Amino acid sequence: MPSRKLTRDDLRQAAEKYKNWGKWGADDEIGTLNYTQARDIVAAAQLVKKGKVISLALNFDQHGPQGAKSKYPAMGRINPLHMMLRTGTDAYSGVLDHRGIRAADDMVVMPLQCGTQWDGLGHVFYENFMWNGYDCRQVTTSGAQKCGIEKTKDKMVGRGVFLDVPRALGKNALDDGYAITSDDLDKTAKAQNVTVKRGDYVVVRTGQMEAKLAAGSWDGYPGGDAPGFSFETLQWIHDRQIAAIASDTWGCEVRPNETEAGINQPWHWITIPIMGLTMGEIFYVADLAKDCVEDRVYEFMFVAPAIPITGAVGSPTNPLAIK
Amino acid sequence: MPSRKLTRDDLRQAAEKYKNWGKWGADDEIGTLNYTQARDIVAAAQLVKKGKVISLALNFDQHGPQGAKSKYPAMGRINPLHMMLRTGTDAYSGVLDHRGIRAADDMVVMPLQCGTQWDGLGHVFYENFMWNGYDCRQVTTSGAQKCGIEKTKDKMVGRGVFLDVPRALGKNALDDGYAITSDDLDKTAKAQNVTVKRGDYVVVRTGQMEAKLAAGSWDGYPGGDAPGFSFETLQWIHDRQIAAIASDTWGCEVRPNETEAGINQPWHWITIPIMGLTMGEIFYVADLAKDCVEDRVYEFMFVAPAIPITGAVGSPTNPLAIK
Amino acid sequence: MPSRKLTRDDLRQAAEKYKNWGKWGADDEIGTLNYTQARDIVAAAQLVKKGKVISLALNFDQHGPQGAKSKYPAMGRINPLHMMLRTGTDAYSGVLDHRGIRAADDMVVMPLQCGTQWDGLGHVFYENFMWNGYDCRQVTTSGAQKCGIEKTKDKMVGRGVFLDVPRALGKNALDDGYAITSDDLDKTAKAQNVTVKRGDYVVVRTGQMEAKLAAGSWDGYPGGDAPGFSFETLQWIHDRQIAAIASDTWGCEVRPNETEAGINQPWHWITIPIMGLTMGEIFYVADLAKDCVEDRVYEFMFVAPAIPITGAVGSPTNPLAIK
Amino acid sequence: MPSRKLTRDDLRQAAEKYKNWGKWGADDEIGTLNYTQARDIVAAAQLVKKGKVISLALNFDQHGPQGAKSKYPAMGRINPLHMMLRTGTDAYSGVLDHRGIRAADDMVVMPLQCGTQWDGLGHVFYENFMWNGYDCRQVTTSGAQKCGIEKTKDKMVGRGVFLDVPRALGKNALDDGYAITSDDLDKTAKAQNVTVKRGDYVVVRTGQMEAKLAAGSWDGYPGGDAPGFSFETLQWIHDRQIAAIASDTWGCEVRPNETEAGINQPWHWITIPIMGLTMGEIFYVADLAKDCVEDRVYEFMFVAPAIPITGAVGSPTNPLAIK
Repeated sequence: MPSRKLTRDDLRQAAEKYKNWGKWGADDEIGTLNYTQARDIVAAAQLVKKGKVISLALNFDQHGPQGAKSKYPAMGRINPLHMMLRTGTDAYSGVLDHRGIRAADDMVVMPLQCGTQWDGLGHVFYENFMWNGYDCRQVTTSGAQKCGIEKTKDKMVGRGVFLDVPRALGKNALDDGYAITSDDLDKTAKAQNVTVKRGDYVVVRTGQMEAKLAAGSWDGYPGGDAPGFSFETLQWIHDRQIAAIASDTWGCEVRPNETEAGINQPWHWITIPIMGLTMGEIFYVADLAKDCVEDRVYEFMFVAPAIPITGAVGSPTNPLAIK
Repeated sequence: MPSRKLTRDDLRQAAEKYKNWGKWGADDEIGTLNYTQARDIVAAAQLVKKGKVISLALNFDQHGPQGAKSKYPAMGRINPLHMMLRTGTDAYSGVLDHRGIRAADDMVVMPLQCGTQWDGLGHVFYENFMWNGYDCRQVTTSGAQKCGIEKTKDKMVGRGVFLDVPRALGKNALDDGYAITSDDLDKTAKAQNVTVKRGDYVVVRTGQMEAKLAAGSWDGYPGGDAPGFSFETLQWIHDRQIAAIASDTWGCEVRPNETEAGINQPWHWITIPIMGLTMGEIFYVADLAKDCVEDRVYEFMFVAPAIPITGAVGSPTNPLAIK
Repeated sequence: MPSRKLTRDDLRQAAEKYKNWGKWGADDEIGTLNYTQARDIVAAAQLVKKGKVISLALNFDQHGPQGAKSKYPAMGRINPLHMMLRTGTDAYSGVLDHRGIRAADDMVVMPLQCGTQWDGLGHVFYENFMWNGYDCRQVTTSGAQKCGIEKTKDKMVGRGVFLDVPRALGKNALDDGYAITSDDLDKTAKAQNVTVKRGDYVVVRTGQMEAKLAAGSWDGYPGGDAPGFSFETLQWIHDRQIAAIASDTWGCEVRPNETEAGINQPWHWITIPIMGLTMGEIFYVADLAKDCVEDRVYEFMFVAPAIPITGAVGSPTNPLAIK
Repeated sequence: MPSRKLTRDDLRQAAEKYKNWGKWGADDEIGTLNYTQARDIVAAAQLVKKGKVISLALNFDQHGPQGAKSKYPAMGRINPLHMMLRTGTDAYSGVLDHRGIRAADDMVVMPLQCGTQWDGLGHVFYENFMWNGYDCRQVTTSGAQKCGIEKTKDKMVGRGVFLDVPRALGKNALDDGYAITSDDLDKTAKAQNVTVKRGDYVVVRTGQMEAKLAAGSWDGYPGGDAPGFSFETLQWIHDRQIAAIASDTWGCEVRPNETEAGINQPWHWITIPIMGLTMGEIFYVADLAKDCVEDRVYEFMFVAPAIPITGAVGSPTNPLAIK
């Protein structure tokens, strides 16, 4: 936590310092996902040694975190609504037989930010700009004309590195409001005997989700206070040239934010529109954490494809750690 | 195409012959996905040699196949509706600034069967039964209490084999109504110098989707006549012990069906509820086909996670062939 | 409250006693709405004397009652989701100008039972039957093939009578669990100097909704304990030959129910499928109550059209009392 | 049809001429609905003479007009999706019995502009302004903060006047592109022996909808060429001081529009944001037309409540003509 509250001027300076606009051409729409190269994918596949697949997704249902209470204003997100268009009870009742087949169909209504998810590069704006300097008016009610999540459809594959910060710090879970520093990330990597490299997908545990699951209530989780990345980790992310970062919290960065009043989620102001960093949120890491404790291997092949919904600013995902 | 139309008695015999109920225990809910073993996943990862990721998903949007005309009754499926909950135009207009962050959110309304998709084991019933002998009344308006797609959340990873049937037969695309036989599949594999093995994910090209895309109209695609698997391929699937099968058509099997009146999609009657075979439909294989022609390698690591929507009978997916 | 809990046998006897099946022909789909005759509508219009329109609808939004806590299992209903398809911020941003018009559009996702609503005759079944003896399998995932709410599209017009029960009993609101009796209804009518007649639309106040609104929380309202009609009011309803009845609670009848375990909402078992009685729920009556106190007139023209959604088992409505 | 195409300058002049901003106070949100006074409602009720209720709504279902072809770009509107949350087939299958009641629930997903509908005053903007001079940025993805349709919840009641223009002109239906003039409206009223007065709800028939229904296809209807109001009818509307106007077409005004390129729906530019005129579209008037021919009475009590969806820019409605 910085000794003083961050100001708009601090954000402005960070924006200048970490700006990757133009780095991958004027028409790039995927930002730091470009860091992962073909040989990194080949190397990542070599990490598959025991043939174990670990899902980092929460199930998508009414038990999800949306709608729980927090002290901040709600965002209007709901848990997924799953509806049946045809059922086994229809089948049993004989009402499908005129079709010559007994089959069920279903439907979902869901905010793309409601569960385990990627934040695409159309999700956050810096002033009137989105990633790579595109005009924010490219994201209209018709969707994102630039940086739609569908542009990432053959990305989200690479080396995954898991950083279990609370474990490295000797805790079960970090406290709400705890700002994870670059130093914490380095210490954790070192304790786990793993090195973060260019093009990696970094998954960071805070333990907050597991604490909520254990408590049987999501209250405080969606938009609430949380442990998370300090603003100063921007430097760490920038230096490491990682492809993407994900965490087990609602919004990755520490809350309450380190900013003066009127600035919400300052780290997001920089990561997405300025750096072009895709982010994962609400990742379920308990199973991965347990497995890593057992085999002491904190790197793996990471495959977490977005559903290519055209013009979407994010996507639900079922991220897989393959070890 | 068999010399005579298939009857209910033929289906009954097939059901007895290919029934895998109980094979993986009385409480199994994932069927043939069990065929893929840990060592198969390790071996699949070894197929990643050039670090290329090829998506097999159509984008999910209003240009999808639903709503196009066919001569059969419509199923009520629509293309995905993507809606914005906050936009860049809101940001530009200054109406988000009271939140201290300029960010966009979005939402989707979509039938889970509307695009590139997995058919889960709750999707089709045989009489009053679903996979493994579960009562079809386990699939109610509250969803699938058994065999929900979320049960597969750490599956859909293994060796992928691509069978480009029209290419092997010297054609661009198979004709509507062409019934792909076991012999066709074997010939194709042989021509491509690839062997299908236990636990594989088999992706079969008919060329129909590419023909529709080239024509600029999906008319005839959703539920319409199509090339696809002959009923007799059940034997091939059964013998090979594959994990799953997918194709580029709306419904995998040949249409018009090989059955007498009143039996619709007979192959589905057996694959899903009797064999426990998960199926992929509406897979976009044009890019993969091109790549395979170029490198002559028809096997790859296949990762196609379902979105674990609790109780769903299917899921959109962004299947990745990683070579 | 009866001296003993109602049993299934009591329900069976009531079903025999109050059954209106066939009364309006074997193909009738609107039940007691038939009681209102043309001359009743003419007479109802004569009640319009001061030209005042009072809406009995809650607004449909995120402040609605769904999602609030109750001690009973939730029904899966949500408050309406209202989404914009084009906005004034789009207009301001100039992104609509290529269309030659600056216009906003919007969309709603809502359970038809989420707010001020009519329960149609497809909403509740008695054993395997719906109103008029139709098979309950006429209500499939494709909707209600019989008794869809669209069948009422030119009904819901007649004389309205408002019964302010708590006021007649000298209270602001009835207590949760208070069972309104036929005698209470008669006393209220008498105190208000109004007579309930054949074909009337009867709107009954309990005061519960106003109490929840005053408390600033809907907790306990959706599906919770409530004042409401005693099972024995079936006789009153039957004798009066009213067209429909509505109240300001979630479900009209008293909760906890007057039944032994395993029977939920016994009054509904009879009213809808047996009598063919359309019911209104979650009616907002505070403004009407106030007006009636002022002018001492408890009868009015009542117009509350359902939105004719084909095959729906209910409909949101904006009921109007026109005085 | 004017002798020359209307220009932006013509619109600007019309905006100055017909501007009602401030007429009902600086905080008014309902515009010309204010014209109807209490005594008008009393008088309207006196028009109920035979007790007949005629619905002016199309049913809301998959047979609605959205999705049909037109030569103009689509607006992204769909027909209503009706989904069941519980069914009679569930009931029959016994899976509801643990609840102690057999009941069905349902849900709708629908654009508020998809069928018989009111266009609220947040629907169209003139430059950066909405009705009464409000900033168009009051209509965000969070809905209309000003002029939401819920503000009309106790309006939409008054005298209805039906103008059967094609009948007065000796035709079954007006041709696409036919511009209804003020003179046509006056002639029709005169032929029908009816006078349009301040505060009236005017419903105008073109016959286009009936022609589409007879043809069995909506092609050309949604957004397509149509008969409708000439721009010059603004003067007629302004002089008559009517409360609202409705028609049986998709968009009330004549198409192709009478404007030069780049100006779409010019009449809407003035009616909604400048005059504050609420408009009804996609009204089904065939039954009303027939009844009026029979009894030669073209005035009636009109009750067409909007569903008060907070912040909505329109609403489905089931408008009733009560004669």
